[in-house]
Amino acid sequence: MTTPATSPPPSKRGLFIALDGPDGGGKTTQAARLVEWLRGRGRDVVACRDPGGTPLGDRLRFLLLERSAWSIGLRAEMLLYMASRAQLVDEVVRPALAAGRDVVSDRYLLANVVYQGHAGGLPLEEVWGVGRAATGELMPDLTLVIDVPPEVASARVARPRDRIEDRPLEYRRRVREGFLLALETYPSPIVLIDGSVDRDTVAAQLQNEVQRALGIGPRP
Amino acid sequence: MTTPATSPPPSKRGLFIALDGPDGGGKTTQAARLVEWLRGRGRDVVACRDPGGTPLGDRLRFLLLERSAWSIGLRAEMLLYMASRAQLVDEVVRPALAAGRDVVSDRYLLANVVYQGHAGGLPLEEVWGVGRAATGELMPDLTLVIDVPPEVASARVARPRDRIEDRPLEYRRRVREGFLLALETYPSPIVLIDGSVDRDTVAAQLQNEVQRALGIGPRP
Repeated sequence: MTTPATSPPPSKRGLFIALDGPDGGGKTTQAARLVEWLRGRGRDVVACRDPGGTPLGDRLRFLLLERSAWSIGLRAEMLLYMASRAQLVDEVVRPALAAGRDVVSDRYLLANVVYQGHAGGLPLEEVWGVGRAATGELMPDLTLVIDVPPEVASARVARPRDRIEDRPLEYRRRVREGFLLALETYPSPIVLIDGSVDRDTVAAQLQNEVQRALGIGPRP
Repeated sequence: MTTPATSPPPSKRGLFIALDGPDGGGKTTQAARLVEWLRGRGRDVVACRDPGGTPLGDRLRFLLLERSAWSIGLRAEMLLYMASRAQLVDEVVRPALAAGRDVVSDRYLLANVVYQGHAGGLPLEEVWGVGRAATGELMPDLTLVIDVPPEVASARVARPRDRIEDRPLEYRRRVREGFLLALETYPSPIVLIDGSVDRDTVAAQLQNEVQRALGIGPRP
């Protein structure tokens, strides 16, 4: 596990935490548990998901994940995720952080770098360039990557699968590789969590990392 | 009028012509007339519009131009146009050009640079960076900008107006400025057409410029 080289952000601004990783790692469940845990520590937390989280974003999420009659190329796919994220940042994340609230997001920019860049084949520099324009360079204070081997993930992903989950095992192997590679290249603090163990242990790992990295003390 | 510093593209590939300019200049009508004129010269032409032109793009066009209940920030707006364009390039423009067909597009990348960049305030370098990623650097062989003063344009735009047309006169003034500025900065050939005269004269100007710039000879 990597120790992020970060100091806690100024106390007036909220903390921005993103969960990411291959499908089937239990991100959504763990994001909800982390939000509850933070609230139990007296923190004011906004939970969101990316793509989605706004009326525009929810429409784009539907366009992206439904197995639809219309085709979506790799560049259009990446740009739709980015459009949803741009709206999420403007409408939800920045206002919440500015008001001193924490934000826990189920995925963020890292997913595009990995899925459309590393696994899909778009030049990483292009994805990063678009990402900077979409977010106005707002990066999480901490990104937690819940890692699971593709075989474990595959067995866990619910059916019917969405358009992305339905891609072949080879694609999902490259996705995992991309997340592992990001540990060395991601420009903001990132920590790997073992998602192959039981849910309570995963939740405890997440809480420890958040506590350690962001300087959140014990329950008040 | 600027003479584009271009030589005709290799004869096997089709010609890519974009029409652009402020709303109310008659672009859509003129694009249709130009397509007919080119076909009358024996050219095989695909007509498209941007945003739109694909099943995904038409859905995005609706999201962008309807005066809707959900809000769309400037960054999300720019990225949605780019997503529609990326799909148009992949699904329509590149295959047509590769098959030796011409493409006439009602708007293209220049519109984003002007509307969201120059008029909207997004950094131009960001819009260009995203544009390169969206199009894979495919630029028109010729962009024809039909120019009209905002007051003339304003009187011409049909009611009810869409979400973009409904913006204040000051915004539309900056849009026009942006198109005029592009004559000096656009990285591919661009020609200004006076759109304030009657339709037949505008059509004749467009035909002359296409003939001159792209080396299309008289009717076979």
